[in-house]
Amino acid sequence: MTILSTPSLYAAEPQIAPQVQNAAQASFKEWAEVLAIPNDSAVAADIQRNAAWFEQVFQRRGFHTRQLANNGKPLLFAEFPKSDPGLPTVLFYGHMDGQPVNPSEWQQKSPWVPVLKQRNAAGQWEAMPLDKLFAKDVNPEWRLFARASADDKAPIMMLLAAIDALKAGGKTPAINLKVILDAEEEKGSPSLGAVVKRNQDLLKSDMLVVLDGPMHPSNQPTLVFGNRGIVVGTLKVYGPKQDSHSGHYGNYAANPAQLMARLLASMKDDEGRVTVPGYYDGVKLDADSLRVMRAVPDDEAALRQRLGIAVADKVGQNYQEAMQYPSLNVRGMQSGDVGEKARTVVPALAVAELDLRTVPETEPAALVALLKGFVEKQGFHLVNGEPSDADRARYPKLASLTFESASASSSAVRTDLNAPIGNWLRRSLTKTYGKEPVQIRMMGGTVPTGALVDALKVPFVIVPLVNADNNQHSANENMRLGNYINGVNTLVGILSEPFSSKP
Amino acid sequence: MTILSTPSLYAAEPQIAPQVQNAAQASFKEWAEVLAIPNDSAVAADIQRNAAWFEQVFQRRGFHTRQLANNGKPLLFAEFPKSDPGLPTVLFYGHMDGQPVNPSEWQQKSPWVPVLKQRNAAGQWEAMPLDKLFAKDVNPEWRLFARASADDKAPIMMLLAAIDALKAGGKTPAINLKVILDAEEEKGSPSLGAVVKRNQDLLKSDMLVVLDGPMHPSNQPTLVFGNRGIVVGTLKVYGPKQDSHSGHYGNYAANPAQLMARLLASMKDDEGRVTVPGYYDGVKLDADSLRVMRAVPDDEAALRQRLGIAVADKVGQNYQEAMQYPSLNVRGMQSGDVGEKARTVVPALAVAELDLRTVPETEPAALVALLKGFVEKQGFHLVNGEPSDADRARYPKLASLTFESASASSSAVRTDLNAPIGNWLRRSLTKTYGKEPVQIRMMGGTVPTGALVDALKVPFVIVPLVNADNNQHSANENMRLGNYINGVNTLVGILSEPFSSKP
Repeated sequence: MTILSTPSLYAAEPQIAPQVQNAAQASFKEWAEVLAIPNDSAVAADIQRNAAWFEQVFQRRGFHTRQLANNGKPLLFAEFPKSDPGLPTVLFYGHMDGQPVNPSEWQQKSPWVPVLKQRNAAGQWEAMPLDKLFAKDVNPEWRLFARASADDKAPIMMLLAAIDALKAGGKTPAINLKVILDAEEEKGSPSLGAVVKRNQDLLKSDMLVVLDGPMHPSNQPTLVFGNRGIVVGTLKVYGPKQDSHSGHYGNYAANPAQLMARLLASMKDDEGRVTVPGYYDGVKLDADSLRVMRAVPDDEAALRQRLGIAVADKVGQNYQEAMQYPSLNVRGMQSGDVGEKARTVVPALAVAELDLRTVPETEPAALVALLKGFVEKQGFHLVNGEPSDADRARYPKLASLTFESASASSSAVRTDLNAPIGNWLRRSLTKTYGKEPVQIRMMGGTVPTGALVDALKVPFVIVPLVNADNNQHSANENMRLGNYINGVNTLVGILSEPFSSKP
Repeated sequence: MTILSTPSLYAAEPQIAPQVQNAAQASFKEWAEVLAIPNDSAVAADIQRNAAWFEQVFQRRGFHTRQLANNGKPLLFAEFPKSDPGLPTVLFYGHMDGQPVNPSEWQQKSPWVPVLKQRNAAGQWEAMPLDKLFAKDVNPEWRLFARASADDKAPIMMLLAAIDALKAGGKTPAINLKVILDAEEEKGSPSLGAVVKRNQDLLKSDMLVVLDGPMHPSNQPTLVFGNRGIVVGTLKVYGPKQDSHSGHYGNYAANPAQLMARLLASMKDDEGRVTVPGYYDGVKLDADSLRVMRAVPDDEAALRQRLGIAVADKVGQNYQEAMQYPSLNVRGMQSGDVGEKARTVVPALAVAELDLRTVPETEPAALVALLKGFVEKQGFHLVNGEPSDADRARYPKLASLTFESASASSSAVRTDLNAPIGNWLRRSLTKTYGKEPVQIRMMGGTVPTGALVDALKVPFVIVPLVNADNNQHSANENMRLGNYINGVNTLVGILSEPFSSKP
């Protein structure tokens, strides 16, 4: 189990109001309860149990709820009674489902039986009685281990606790509040867009706040304004019709691995920048964006050490800048066989699996068109499917390049750093923490925000609340209690902050 | 089963003397008998049975024989009574062992039960009663199907039949004659060099004639003066320590498949010529060699069609020239996974399996040294084994390049086209067929001739006698009867030709 140390921001924070602290701790019981319900969306019955459970805890807090039909894997909609019809409506997004588990990889009996742990003097995680989670004093460094303890049941529980804290203080939210809980996020939210479109009136909102994903590794309060999209494809380069004897045909039949190498090499320079003309067109980083990116406290030396690389590709001046550009990544490559199975042949075929991470300025279809044109310009004739004998007789270089069609849930989306929603959230977090949050203009990975943005046409910001070292998607997923309590405090701040578009 | 049509040279030949024709046909019985003895050298007992069988048929013709010990897989030595101690001694090489078989792929009951076949009107091979093989009239287009029917039991049988033919004509060979039968040729003759060195006095000869391999595809009488060698190696390029998320690290962690592509691309130009400085040094093709190569009746259009390629690499001006140069072939390549197993990662590693076909002018060690220097010149630090964390922190580009040590049995060897042995054999074949044979300066593949040449320090020429479309190494191996009878005639011509070094 790899658990990185998470910097504690708990000690450094201003005092958290007692009703916030109490509401957070009081919610631990429900949190532990819901973590006992398996939530792999491959199992419809489990999603139904989660939806029913969440529906009931939202209702208990006065929300109106409705399960949104989705082939047996319902999404959950919840709406808090309007504070004032004149106030803007903010839709909060979270997801009930979690990654599949391999229990044998977990250092506890079951991923569905949450275990409270603390780190011992040797730095190892040691189980404690679960009762300690429900006692008066909890240590912010303790962590609760279970599937979905962080991703993404914790943020939903934090939102409920924030409502409780407001209520305890006799307040109502400063905005109108809707919630949508996804049921298939870990499968790429294949149904989210369609369900939202079918329930557009219900979900109608002015803004979207996504409660998902990890905070910046520095564990500083974080706002994420966008995410890259993805489209995957396959490049094939054809050699002789069959694998051919490398003695008789080496130096005669062109080797497709070699041709593939030339082709891929032509697509990037020696420092990792794509050389396909136009690939980066449209990406413009203004002075303000550059400043915000430079302000992100990335420890790139530590990052490079963790990756085991001496230098990074030079697509941007730093990590944050690199994520503003579309990527062209060889995620897999094969020709003939390697290792024990290697034979002395000129292989018949070379295959490269590609993934392009897209940005809002670069539509997947446009990148694919640029790539196809570039491959042709390198002298390759592109075929659909296998080349025919006639193709083989006619064209010196044969390749095929196919891409899966891109979907809204895998599209790139970004909200302007100075959009009203950004100003509102930045103001709130700055008030809560006494300093500006880390602002991620664009995260490198792909999340299904695009499906919501596409369906609702609203500006969005992601507000991640869980520790970056939560082992999400792996065994031994965990949530740091300090982050949980701070997350509730963050949400109380947001719900209390009157909306205004001013910075 | 792929059986190419073999041009018949039978009809076009001058009349074969009756005693040659008779001796050839009389040997069919023994040929069929020995084809019933399995000969995969993985099974020592089978090799022993073959050695015993061959020993007895050589003895029957007056040869002195001796089995040469080799860990239970004996080689067979045979010497014909000296015609005249003053004549040069020629060692004839053949091999008893054959490729392993997969009987289910054969269109006959067993690869060890020879089946006589003729082609029907539809072009398919049809079995005939085996008795027809032993009748007075055989059709040269008939073929005998069995493992080793061609490779390499036929040439050994042809040699025995040639001795019979000489005897029937009341003649003795015009040279002194020794024979060595290898037991592990299909495994790369790992033991040949050592066994020959242990029995150097016995095997002492002035020249070596190798009776193995297929004739030129035109089915014209063929002499082969050399073969390329081979050395295999593995090139690895290292990326991040683990496969890393292509969203978070695409554009940041350099992709090893991409680095591998740049590296391989730098090694060859767009027409397949190696660009590593010095790689082709020493290869010089004089006017006479170029003339001989141009005279080879290669049907390159047909070859390209069979390979399914529109153009060939431009290493030489034609196929024969291309084989005179060392190759640099990517026989396998892998990074991450392709197809169903592809994941969206920056892979940790890229591997290319290389095979270098060497020529006598290019020692494997020299090529490997050139390659290593070239890789370093491309900015790669070469590590032994996995890179350490310190290596990773220090060097922007990390690779390893390891080669298996080259052995004599996989070395390149060549006899000068104008060497005395070449002049003698060329004169003999020209007399027998009324025209100059096809002369292959260097065949592209690797045969273990190097082990013999290294151990005995004698000039050699390969005299292939079997049809090129014999399916050697595959299912449905077969031998064309016309080629068998012509082979006997070829050998009668050689054994009758007084040695002289003059052209």
